[in-house]
Amino acid sequence: MSEKTPEQIVTGFIDLINKKDLAGATSLLSENCEYDNVPMGKVFGREAIYAQLEPMMERCAEIDWITIRQTASDFIVMNERLDKFLWPHGWVEMPCAGIFEIKDEEIVLWRDYFDLPTYTNQLPK
Amino acid sequence: MSEKTPEQIVTGFIDLINKKDLAGATSLLSENCEYDNVPMGKVFGREAIYAQLEPMMERCAEIDWITIRQTASDFIVMNERLDKFLWPHGWVEMPCAGIFEIKDEEIVLWRDYFDLPTYTNQLPK
Repeated sequence: MSEKTPEQIVTGFIDLINKKDLAGATSLLSENCEYDNVPMGKVFGREAIYAQLEPMMERCAEIDWITIRQTASDFIVMNERLDKFLWPHGWVEMPCAGIFEIKDEEIVLWRDYFDLPTYTNQLPK
Repeated sequence: MSEKTPEQIVTGFIDLINKKDLAGATSLLSENCEYDNVPMGKVFGREAIYAQLEPMMERCAEIDWITIRQTASDFIVMNERLDKFLWPHGWVEMPCAGIFEIKDEEIVLWRDYFDLPTYTNQLPK
């Protein structure tokens, strides 16, 4: 039986996102996981989160979310990241901070704080 | 001699902000502290940070920054907050995530991630 720490689970989740393995990444989420992309709104449930992330995976040739700092206390993990997306027109970079809650080795909450215009201003007009 | 943990220092800093004790709060920052209010830009140095925060202290009758979650690893502390500001027209609420680095019991880095329009859309037109 695996005994992964909350921090290992979050690191593994980001690694799978970077491999564009969406099925693998979302398998680390609980069935009713809350995904709160703060300025854009919330999505609930592993399947709905998969559907939410799928267009990003299809649109971007590469995804490289770089973890700059990470802290953990009990079942909560927070990270500071530079989320990079290779769009057809070039790299888009989104500085953000993520908050994760782990329960029974599953991610039950994933919340990202970022400035939405910083992202949208880099997209094609 | 005091032996405060990084987390205690950050909690004390937020408490002093909420008391509107700006001199006390900034006394916990290092002389060359970096304050990065991500979508708005960086300010360097205790005195410059004091000058940056002073108008907010004068404008708002009350400041109530509520820490929702907090994690710490080594010298890094991260928190999820709801920063509330009582402006003359009413309460303004800013959900954000903060990252702090502590060195020699002083805050050397304070970086907040938030969505700027969420804040500015609540200000008087």
